[in-house]
Amino acid sequence: MVRKFIIDTDTASDDAVALIMALRWADVEVEAITVVSGNVNVDQATRNALYVTDLCGRTTPVYKGASKPLLRPTAHAEWFHGRDGLGDIGYPPPKRQPEAKHAVDGMIDTIRANPGIVLVTLGPLTNVALALGKAPDIAANVSRCVIMGGAACTSGNVTPAAEYNIWCDPEAADIVFRSGLPIEMVGWELCREQANILPEEMTLIRGFGTELAVFSMDCNRRAFLATQEQSGDPGLGLPDPVAMSIALDPSICTASSAHHIAVETVGVYTRGMTIVDRFGVAPDVRNAAIWEPYVRGPQAGQGEPKTRVCWQIDIARWKEVLYSVLR
Amino acid sequence: MVRKFIIDTDTASDDAVALIMALRWADVEVEAITVVSGNVNVDQATRNALYVTDLCGRTTPVYKGASKPLLRPTAHAEWFHGRDGLGDIGYPPPKRQPEAKHAVDGMIDTIRANPGIVLVTLGPLTNVALALGKAPDIAANVSRCVIMGGAACTSGNVTPAAEYNIWCDPEAADIVFRSGLPIEMVGWELCREQANILPEEMTLIRGFGTELAVFSMDCNRRAFLATQEQSGDPGLGLPDPVAMSIALDPSICTASSAHHIAVETVGVYTRGMTIVDRFGVAPDVRNAAIWEPYVRGPQAGQGEPKTRVCWQIDIARWKEVLYSVLR
Amino acid sequence: MVRKFIIDTDTASDDAVALIMALRWADVEVEAITVVSGNVNVDQATRNALYVTDLCGRTTPVYKGASKPLLRPTAHAEWFHGRDGLGDIGYPPPKRQPEAKHAVDGMIDTIRANPGIVLVTLGPLTNVALALGKAPDIAANVSRCVIMGGAACTSGNVTPAAEYNIWCDPEAADIVFRSGLPIEMVGWELCREQANILPEEMTLIRGFGTELAVFSMDCNRRAFLATQEQSGDPGLGLPDPVAMSIALDPSICTASSAHHIAVETVGVYTRGMTIVDRFGVAPDVRNAAIWEPYVRGPQAGQGEPKTRVCWQIDIARWKEVLYSVLR
Amino acid sequence: MVRKFIIDTDTASDDAVALIMALRWADVEVEAITVVSGNVNVDQATRNALYVTDLCGRTTPVYKGASKPLLRPTAHAEWFHGRDGLGDIGYPPPKRQPEAKHAVDGMIDTIRANPGIVLVTLGPLTNVALALGKAPDIAANVSRCVIMGGAACTSGNVTPAAEYNIWCDPEAADIVFRSGLPIEMVGWELCREQANILPEEMTLIRGFGTELAVFSMDCNRRAFLATQEQSGDPGLGLPDPVAMSIALDPSICTASSAHHIAVETVGVYTRGMTIVDRFGVAPDVRNAAIWEPYVRGPQAGQGEPKTRVCWQIDIARWKEVLYSVLR
Repeated sequence: MVRKFIIDTDTASDDAVALIMALRWADVEVEAITVVSGNVNVDQATRNALYVTDLCGRTTPVYKGASKPLLRPTAHAEWFHGRDGLGDIGYPPPKRQPEAKHAVDGMIDTIRANPGIVLVTLGPLTNVALALGKAPDIAANVSRCVIMGGAACTSGNVTPAAEYNIWCDPEAADIVFRSGLPIEMVGWELCREQANILPEEMTLIRGFGTELAVFSMDCNRRAFLATQEQSGDPGLGLPDPVAMSIALDPSICTASSAHHIAVETVGVYTRGMTIVDRFGVAPDVRNAAIWEPYVRGPQAGQGEPKTRVCWQIDIARWKEVLYSVLR
Repeated sequence: MVRKFIIDTDTASDDAVALIMALRWADVEVEAITVVSGNVNVDQATRNALYVTDLCGRTTPVYKGASKPLLRPTAHAEWFHGRDGLGDIGYPPPKRQPEAKHAVDGMIDTIRANPGIVLVTLGPLTNVALALGKAPDIAANVSRCVIMGGAACTSGNVTPAAEYNIWCDPEAADIVFRSGLPIEMVGWELCREQANILPEEMTLIRGFGTELAVFSMDCNRRAFLATQEQSGDPGLGLPDPVAMSIALDPSICTASSAHHIAVETVGVYTRGMTIVDRFGVAPDVRNAAIWEPYVRGPQAGQGEPKTRVCWQIDIARWKEVLYSVLR
Repeated sequence: MVRKFIIDTDTASDDAVALIMALRWADVEVEAITVVSGNVNVDQATRNALYVTDLCGRTTPVYKGASKPLLRPTAHAEWFHGRDGLGDIGYPPPKRQPEAKHAVDGMIDTIRANPGIVLVTLGPLTNVALALGKAPDIAANVSRCVIMGGAACTSGNVTPAAEYNIWCDPEAADIVFRSGLPIEMVGWELCREQANILPEEMTLIRGFGTELAVFSMDCNRRAFLATQEQSGDPGLGLPDPVAMSIALDPSICTASSAHHIAVETVGVYTRGMTIVDRFGVAPDVRNAAIWEPYVRGPQAGQGEPKTRVCWQIDIARWKEVLYSVLR
Repeated sequence: MVRKFIIDTDTASDDAVALIMALRWADVEVEAITVVSGNVNVDQATRNALYVTDLCGRTTPVYKGASKPLLRPTAHAEWFHGRDGLGDIGYPPPKRQPEAKHAVDGMIDTIRANPGIVLVTLGPLTNVALALGKAPDIAANVSRCVIMGGAACTSGNVTPAAEYNIWCDPEAADIVFRSGLPIEMVGWELCREQANILPEEMTLIRGFGTELAVFSMDCNRRAFLATQEQSGDPGLGLPDPVAMSIALDPSICTASSAHHIAVETVGVYTRGMTIVDRFGVAPDVRNAAIWEPYVRGPQAGQGEPKTRVCWQIDIARWKEVLYSVLR
């Protein structure tokens, strides 16, 4: 049976690889790609998403969305992905145009038309928050919402407390985490160190000789250097593809548990932090006041937190999934 | 020449009177009414708006919008306006249905189609914020944005620091005040004390004998009592009609000046406060860090703050405007 | 009967005049002067306080206190008062040294030794907060605590929301306002416009020909210019002397009322704001969570808020008090 | 050569064991014990500290200090340690009285008199913050400041983000972490799981048969049960003794590194969190605004962060240290 996907993306170099994975996965049909400001501006990100569909020979509808976060100033990551988000190789313009409809409406209509659809988010959550603002009902129509973002009980990558996608638009993330969507959070800590693609693995991929394999390595050449600069980790970090691999094959997440998760929007040092109630203290009377919106929210109405935190992945398998779509 | 209006409203008893004023004003055409959660839930508010158009014999399109604030829990004011928002008189259902389109899209499309339109907001700013999130360009198409809300350098009505409409959805208000919209802020302090409709003036209005005059007083019978409970002020407070009178006849505002205005979203005691930079210290180096988003924002791009604060109104004239539409 | 006073001061030019007023007031004995960082650094402020006692021929003990706010970076106001805080006239060094004891202990010991003493604060509240941290019992020994600071339901002078003394060390102010001290708040809004000493009144004072009159005008020559720069108000603003006049003669405050007052320490735009619960909504269920510390605090234990806000002063009388001590 | 120690403690059952360790350690002389409100009220904690010195046959001066946090409401942990903090065994009153001097002054005077002294803190940091408020110079006289408190890049124990000692008085912690004190942070995550004293190890200790061994196990009988309730960890958690073992024998900390650490005082979900800049991003331009006070503070003046985070301990060795003092 075919699974339907909708992907929200601030399309830069690792998003591009994640899109390829979904577009080429046998039992998955990507119903829509919605694009948001994040790694690069939304116009560039939209061009990039269209270009990837071209490369994959697909005509998946691509919808352009929010051009900035709800409240916060815009903060792109061009230093990481290149000015065009794809390593400044100079790729040609895409063959298609985005849909006329706004991404928010593309998302609402696609989710309403496809009960049980899987939502995968690869960027800041502005589009999803705006869609939930207009149509809170869509949360109930999504069977899984796999989010690349956050950090579970560990340091962040953009500040000591926060991961980039959540930090960019923390108010949007707050809306999404409280919406009742069945979230699976894939934090950035799962997408580094041994999960990185090492130089010899990059060579292996290039050796596949396919257009998609070469593209995937080329467009990430700037990100490869930036990975070293940022964390000193070996190899190329590919957070969005890691999250996508779990969306495609849930067994890649080898340890997970369900928790209340709050997004800090107020803290001086902790803006955009994802606070995981790992020890289940949210209902404790001492924490009641601050966690009340979560505990009383739609999640609690159903008795249990609906957010699953992924704690561990099968690294060999994630890389095999990557290889399989690029071979 | 006819002036085009679009009105966003959480239609309860004073909103109803404000709608009547606009719908009956000679040189004004109300292109759309968009409805938001606030005083009452959005379904009830939509029915109320439709009922008012029925009463006025108009078929103005009414769009149902956001059912809750962006991030905050919902806080209606039914104790003030009655369970149905119209004094629990038991009015019949409206004759028409709301438009199929969501208020956010009703607002975007109406503003795009009517350059120079006047936007009047009578409730929390959730719809306007969501519309700006999807379509930031609409700010440039509005000639005046008259907001009933906030408090200029004085106490609030719902907390010591904040007025209800802004307090309900401070993040939405923050988005709107930073959007570049040419705002005219009519704070609640202008809409009380001598601006209230005194018992003898209520009798005068009833004496007009028109259906609209009787309705306006009947539907506010609960609000009349609530006004005393809240502030001890004499008579009936009608904040939305006061703001509407300024929208209809700008000369009713007899003192105003332009300032940067920030909305506090973080403070413990000051959530939803409208901070007016009355002495122009925002560009001061000591305030630079906190005011930077305002000073560098779209307002600053045009050299001057675009938010006008109304400091004083011509009370006799506001009441005459009210009488004139109900006679 | 002699009234005992203790004065906490960040001694600059207007503090100097306030000290003179207390030191020369017939029925008042100043038991101690404690000095805090504020307008100028604490060493300079201590020298200034000692110099004023020299001028008045008094040997009141002067205690040096906190050199910086509890948590916040130091922010002096030398641009307003001159580098030495006394208009850079070049006054000689004081004849005496400060006491060996720290101001915090000078304050605790003096208050414990003098039940019913009047505490007057003219600067940031760091010393008072530290004293309360060590000795919460002293609050019950003070009969009046007259605070020059804050702004009651109006704009601030250093930011649009906050007055300098409170803004400098908002956490200290929070401690003081919740301590149970019987506070009388004299906001900066009472100390400007018509309360200012006009040029002709400055000439009148100089004409008294006394050393203290000449000193009071000389040391404020920089403050006179700064008053114009800051607010455009006519004349010389003397906030600390205004507050001192009320401490000396309570009938100068012609309108006051008791309220809960909170100090905002968290807000982005409202740090250091004094929020006055003018309409008594603190006990309202909607405000319960945020006002709980105040309502349940020592003030509430006695059934009523203990903070009095001064709303109006007798301007002629305040100036007469000033003249009387300088003649 | 003898090392001088001063210990600040909210003396409950694990503090008691930590005090015994220091009082009985061969080359350490405890100059002073200062007591603070925390686990239990400050009067009870002071009696407990005195009782422990009695047990050890020492007459170390004990100073009573702050009775509540700087700004926050008091939150004891009697459910964890028993109403008397020592397992409600019914120990007799201590033989001695606390010193007349306040703990804040006991701390200041002791540190000034003993350059190079080691400060060990086992409770909320209120006393230390008040001492630094009066005497910032003492920071330079301390050779090591070992803090039991915080959580380094992991979950908290009292909220999902914060550890109890820091959470109790976050403003005090903020003052201490920015003071320039040479802090070694021993987070609660080092003091659980395998660092706990297992039931068989408790039996072993009891078997030593000494009065101190029996006391140490008896007074922790409530804490033993509470450990299971809180985290489900096996055995008895002894955070303060773990920290003390590192103070006594630094080689027990087998992995550490120096970082900027901020304490969040503002966040809704993150109050009292210790944010460790593990990847050194504080000086990054994107983080400059929020980390500025740290980077420009006294730590930065010396070029490097002075706070060492302990990441790992030698568990066998910590337990051997414990056994050695109780045998």
